[in-house]
Amino acid sequence: MMLTGREMRSTIDEDGVLTLSLENVAIGDPGDDEIIVRVEAAPINPSDLGLLLGPADIASLATAGAGGGATLLFNVPKDRLAGVRGRLGQSLSIGNEAAGTVVAAGKNATELEGKRVGMIGGGMYADYRRIRAADVIPLPKGASTADGASMFVNPLTALGFVETARREGHKAIVHTAAASNLGQMLQKICLADDIPLVNIVRSAEQAQILREIGATYVLNSKDDDFIAQLTDALQQTGATIAFDAIGGGTLGNDILQAMERAAIRAMTDYSRYGSDTFKQLYIYGALDTAPTVLNRLSFGFQWGVGGWLLFPFLRKAGKEVAEQMRQRVVDELTTTFASHYTRVIGLADALNPDILRAYERKATGEKFLIKPTLG
Amino acid sequence: MMLTGREMRSTIDEDGVLTLSLENVAIGDPGDDEIIVRVEAAPINPSDLGLLLGPADIASLATAGAGGGATLLFNVPKDRLAGVRGRLGQSLSIGNEAAGTVVAAGKNATELEGKRVGMIGGGMYADYRRIRAADVIPLPKGASTADGASMFVNPLTALGFVETARREGHKAIVHTAAASNLGQMLQKICLADDIPLVNIVRSAEQAQILREIGATYVLNSKDDDFIAQLTDALQQTGATIAFDAIGGGTLGNDILQAMERAAIRAMTDYSRYGSDTFKQLYIYGALDTAPTVLNRLSFGFQWGVGGWLLFPFLRKAGKEVAEQMRQRVVDELTTTFASHYTRVIGLADALNPDILRAYERKATGEKFLIKPTLG
Repeated sequence: MMLTGREMRSTIDEDGVLTLSLENVAIGDPGDDEIIVRVEAAPINPSDLGLLLGPADIASLATAGAGGGATLLFNVPKDRLAGVRGRLGQSLSIGNEAAGTVVAAGKNATELEGKRVGMIGGGMYADYRRIRAADVIPLPKGASTADGASMFVNPLTALGFVETARREGHKAIVHTAAASNLGQMLQKICLADDIPLVNIVRSAEQAQILREIGATYVLNSKDDDFIAQLTDALQQTGATIAFDAIGGGTLGNDILQAMERAAIRAMTDYSRYGSDTFKQLYIYGALDTAPTVLNRLSFGFQWGVGGWLLFPFLRKAGKEVAEQMRQRVVDELTTTFASHYTRVIGLADALNPDILRAYERKATGEKFLIKPTLG
Repeated sequence: MMLTGREMRSTIDEDGVLTLSLENVAIGDPGDDEIIVRVEAAPINPSDLGLLLGPADIASLATAGAGGGATLLFNVPKDRLAGVRGRLGQSLSIGNEAAGTVVAAGKNATELEGKRVGMIGGGMYADYRRIRAADVIPLPKGASTADGASMFVNPLTALGFVETARREGHKAIVHTAAASNLGQMLQKICLADDIPLVNIVRSAEQAQILREIGATYVLNSKDDDFIAQLTDALQQTGATIAFDAIGGGTLGNDILQAMERAAIRAMTDYSRYGSDTFKQLYIYGALDTAPTVLNRLSFGFQWGVGGWLLFPFLRKAGKEVAEQMRQRVVDELTTTFASHYTRVIGLADALNPDILRAYERKATGEKFLIKPTLG
């Protein structure tokens, strides 16, 4: 018996037309070390949008065809095409992570048959995913596939932030866009591990979410005295590393500058080179795609700004650390690493224009979970 | 006998008035481990201007008094005063490095009497400098005090760049404002050590200076096809670290972006996260004080930008490496580490308004050497 199922695909052609579609594909029998998982829950993370929509102009959305064979078309502006040259003409499958039930297994993986597993590896926006058995994690007893859908990207990123801060010698952390699922996990980890965390959010509602889970430092960047509040919080906590989901504009700059001011308050001698305190800003997201602007003269010479990405971090951290992190996620899946979704949709709904527009507007607070079995 | 001599001072008062003056000060007898050096040659480096002029508005220059007691007055704009709060009211001595002749020595340093030495430690724009014997280096035979005046800041910075690149695993280097004394030293070191160097300059004259000392890669950032030339040079050399003297604007961004493009040319599979190649930009100067603008979405996630400063580097590198670097400077003082000056002036001339304006305009190519004995 050959399984077939739907799979979401994104293709950009040479003319800059991006096509989103659901293709019916044959799954193929599992190899000896492989399994086939029926996908039951897959989150839409900001990190999925890069492949899904690429640099397309969302306003250019048009539909073609109808029913199950309907496709969505977008234009990629000419000046953004160079950045995606490497994918032109390729039909790319989408979806970083998911959870589901094992419906078939190769001869070396039969112990997984019928089990619920979480998995990462791309191509998860589909009815079925054939995958190496080594790339899945059986869900703990009592956990649903919705619980297990987001057990990789956000949990490992949050743990990765804490591990990065430790390795690089920082004793407290700053986080922006901090009320996200990821941000809530980070706050819970920091509480458990006794690491001061300065949360920066953009609304009173977001601040409330964090306070309810025990956050001490929650700052609203829209407050008039935000910079003064931030400087005080940095002085109190000694935070010298920040993880920034926003990236564009001047918030990262403001954080480095406030770190320097907090450090200078503690200095007795003037130095025109600024403080001796090393300040690090890691940009891990792009909620704002505008350029990053650094008024570096206001933060001395002891500073660094860089990109932070999960997989290079895991490679650098090594197998043992990565394994410990994964185990902690399993152990605390429904507590520390619980995720919250505002809408649950079917796989075909994920190509609904209204829904696409909603999840492209990253600041809406909408958080989608795809359940392919819903349609 | 009590020696007295002139010493240049810079003071910013609470109202934001910066005063430059020459004070007559008593030198004091040397302690057991100290010597007194008659300053015979001291360079004006960009790194001296930070203390000398601070954030003052050069256009506001006014003079007060006359003759030897004349002082220069500048206004520091109100919005820049916060950055120098730590020095308000302090009369700061100026001048990072110099060379001269030892005219007195404490009982543990008598072997230095009459010797010519190079020294670093601030307060060098003066007739005499009392200093710890351990903080000077006797000049090699045949070297004049003009030869020894710049034996610390530029030589150790150039060697520090090469050492930083090696430690961080880069095989070739990019340098901006590359025709400077520092840049010429860096090119000579890279030729001797067989490290490819991509030089970026802003004029044909500057390019010529570097070609004459054997540079292979010299790019003029004003050329229309500069970015294409840069990308090719980065691909050919594999340079993934850049040291930038300019800091402001988009040149650093352009370098990181070209590094990423060069890396992507070598990739076979598309990744929306960009290349796996880690790209580092160090900003060590501020020829342009405007903000640094990073269009980071065009250079993937594997990148870092940071400040680079000599003394923190030397501390991190350790005593042994620093000692090796110093010895190399002594050994190659009149070859690799030869400095060139366009004007030689007296100590009083250094407070001449015309000269001050000339060396504040950093792009003039003027390079001053102060010889206090000239007046």
